[in-house]
Amino acid sequence: MKKIMDMTPDELKNALITGSVTVCVVGIGRIGLPTALSFANSGLFTIGLDINSELVKNINSGIYPLKDEPEYDIIFDKVINEKKFFATTDIKKSVTKADIILLSLPTPMDKNNVPDYSALRSVGKQLSEYLSEGSIVIIESTIEPGFVENEFVSIIEGLQNRLKVEKNFAIGVCPETANPGEIMVDFTKLPRLVAGINENITNLIHEIYHFVFPVELIHMPNCKTASAVKLTTNVFRDVNIAFVNELSLLFEKLGIDTMTVLKAAQSKYNFQVHYPGAGVGGPCLPVNSYQILNSGKNVGIDSLKLVKACREINESMPQHVIELLQDCFAESNLDVKGSTILILGISYKPNVKDIQLSPAEPIIQKLSELGAHIRIFDPYFVNEKVYGIQSEDNLNNALVESDAALIITAHKEFLDIEPYLFSSKLKNKILVDSRGIVDPKTAKNIGLIFRGLGRGI
Amino acid sequence: MKKIMDMTPDELKNALITGSVTVCVVGIGRIGLPTALSFANSGLFTIGLDINSELVKNINSGIYPLKDEPEYDIIFDKVINEKKFFATTDIKKSVTKADIILLSLPTPMDKNNVPDYSALRSVGKQLSEYLSEGSIVIIESTIEPGFVENEFVSIIEGLQNRLKVEKNFAIGVCPETANPGEIMVDFTKLPRLVAGINENITNLIHEIYHFVFPVELIHMPNCKTASAVKLTTNVFRDVNIAFVNELSLLFEKLGIDTMTVLKAAQSKYNFQVHYPGAGVGGPCLPVNSYQILNSGKNVGIDSLKLVKACREINESMPQHVIELLQDCFAESNLDVKGSTILILGISYKPNVKDIQLSPAEPIIQKLSELGAHIRIFDPYFVNEKVYGIQSEDNLNNALVESDAALIITAHKEFLDIEPYLFSSKLKNKILVDSRGIVDPKTAKNIGLIFRGLGRGI
Repeated sequence: MKKIMDMTPDELKNALITGSVTVCVVGIGRIGLPTALSFANSGLFTIGLDINSELVKNINSGIYPLKDEPEYDIIFDKVINEKKFFATTDIKKSVTKADIILLSLPTPMDKNNVPDYSALRSVGKQLSEYLSEGSIVIIESTIEPGFVENEFVSIIEGLQNRLKVEKNFAIGVCPETANPGEIMVDFTKLPRLVAGINENITNLIHEIYHFVFPVELIHMPNCKTASAVKLTTNVFRDVNIAFVNELSLLFEKLGIDTMTVLKAAQSKYNFQVHYPGAGVGGPCLPVNSYQILNSGKNVGIDSLKLVKACREINESMPQHVIELLQDCFAESNLDVKGSTILILGISYKPNVKDIQLSPAEPIIQKLSELGAHIRIFDPYFVNEKVYGIQSEDNLNNALVESDAALIITAHKEFLDIEPYLFSSKLKNKILVDSRGIVDPKTAKNIGLIFRGLGRGI
Repeated sequence: MKKIMDMTPDELKNALITGSVTVCVVGIGRIGLPTALSFANSGLFTIGLDINSELVKNINSGIYPLKDEPEYDIIFDKVINEKKFFATTDIKKSVTKADIILLSLPTPMDKNNVPDYSALRSVGKQLSEYLSEGSIVIIESTIEPGFVENEFVSIIEGLQNRLKVEKNFAIGVCPETANPGEIMVDFTKLPRLVAGINENITNLIHEIYHFVFPVELIHMPNCKTASAVKLTTNVFRDVNIAFVNELSLLFEKLGIDTMTVLKAAQSKYNFQVHYPGAGVGGPCLPVNSYQILNSGKNVGIDSLKLVKACREINESMPQHVIELLQDCFAESNLDVKGSTILILGISYKPNVKDIQLSPAEPIIQKLSELGAHIRIFDPYFVNEKVYGIQSEDNLNNALVESDAALIITAHKEFLDIEPYLFSSKLKNKILVDSRGIVDPKTAKNIGLIFRGLGRGI
């Protein structure tokens, strides 16, 4: 077979249809595994590579690890049975066999909020050793604009003279756009950006993704522009959430209900609504903002003021939520110290089992420091040890044993709770709602000591 | 006739239908005049009150002053002929006759960017003297949340005991939402917020606007919430323009084209596009952001970080545009000093004749200070004295006599200019485009010394 990077788009299409192309997905976590399963399900032999040996063992034993991703459980069973997919920790064996290497590695931050590309760099070094000539490397991870062109290509080329980009290996990006919890929907609906190191490679990457995903593929002029688009769309959300968070702080003091304002504001044709909350977490938004800030630093822009302010506001929200709770305790003449506080929801967003960078963590930590006993009820974490706390399995029991409740995540299971449940069960009838779920007037009427984030009255 | 504030909604509806209600619109400028004309055109006798005696004289002589507001010229002739409308400077005579007083007064800023409500306050004091008992005052001007409740009611009540709100006069708000240049469209399409000092008054204000405007009317719980909504929707835009401006500065340095990024970003379902530019002007956005900042100060929030950063960025854009121009001059080994620079567009936004807070002003001022000779070509200001400069009447001639051109406003008349016109006519082929009109590659290909705002290449 002709080397994949030297094929015409039509030749590649045929190779894909006949299943004569091998794919290796490096990093089979939250996004990487569904990606690998999609490739395998399209008929391509797919290897999932990960350093997590327990994950690899479980997968190869037929245990599907992503319980909150519908439909992929069925595909998982199918491709495992058909032997179209297996997992491994052996990078040499998997990469040397592959024509297409997808990198779905985490790009988190360190403790100083500096983006951490060590996983990509480490894999890049090994690609330098093991990559088969003529193969195509595609980065799906969210990276800073220029990372491919200025750094990653040289890492793969390495110090030996074996590999030279565009000559005997190719590279490109196709940033993932999936939302945890709804990856199947996103992989079949959301347009994706594709960019290669040159236009030919862009066209080949197009063929590859077109074969697997029934979505619109948008060609970018280069890798850095694709990364810029990915960051722009996510930081847009972080900034707009910061905006409504900032308004919420103001409206609380002005006696204005932010939820009423946002509902009416949506009647304006050019307004797009975002909602305030206890903080912005998850694997994307906070990191993406720091990636943009880091990109700025690298070209001598000392501070991107707006993005910096955005992060400061969103990172201050956990403290504000704690202050709302302290207000309630003061109003009740009670001490936070020694009290029992029930945290409702710890996921960083509704309806998923995921606590990456969740505001629940700093809130629980601070309340513990203040001497409160913390209980956790989250329908996605039942009877599990999280943040060193054994989570509850029964909301009623948990309420009865708590002085106060604090809603952090707007899980769908919380939306229909009758507010009366809080006033009738809680020992001290204190409720703080950081997600606009409970109507403030109802809360007062039924005797709750209540604070709602942004809900001035 | 029963006093209007004591009517039921049905009684008011009848009074409106029979034309037995008199309206006074205070402030008949850009928004106030079309508002007054709409009321008169609905059959209500309407008085337009203004301190600008020349405007009043012109109107009463049948001279329509708003040349860029389609359709209202015809309504103007009609209601003047039917004697349904006249203008006056006499507040006593007009206010005493009126059942409904609409305030459409400017709420600008002073030189320190502090919102200036002196026009409203001054009229408020006179209403205190002249308001007929039982009438309804409706503020359309954009005000800070709480201005009605905390200040304006007491101004009208004054020190005498004649007027007491809810007892013998009523008050409410209906923030205007019209965009200069398309007021007729906006008045017939955009939903409006209504709020009275109590629910009865909200319902009466609803009847009044429902009689005149065929738009959705959204009831707000109180005046301050309506003001908060108005500010939220506008500051949202200021913030998002600041975001793309900040990205533009970054992308220029990263060699990324912001326009390409924004086009691709729109494929993301939850991204709303805004465009970068030389600055954010006009009677609304900059002021509205300072109104929100001022509201914060008044309740002890030292600084709303995000809104503050937003203003800083948008106010720094004129300087950035000047730097792009200086770059071009440096590349051409030419001095800005002594050169002739043609400013293309001075309006704060496309397709209107309006230079309120336009970024053109600081740009022209700074370039003049740098020793450049400034020419202005703007199809909405032909052969007029603006910023102390006599504007051009012919683009070709103006280009031929200039070293460089700088596009500040994306007037529709500029969108189809063949880029070759710039390279063939300009003495030194320098073009700076702050509005993404000219394609950077085309510009280079035809030999222009070119900089596009946000257009890294």
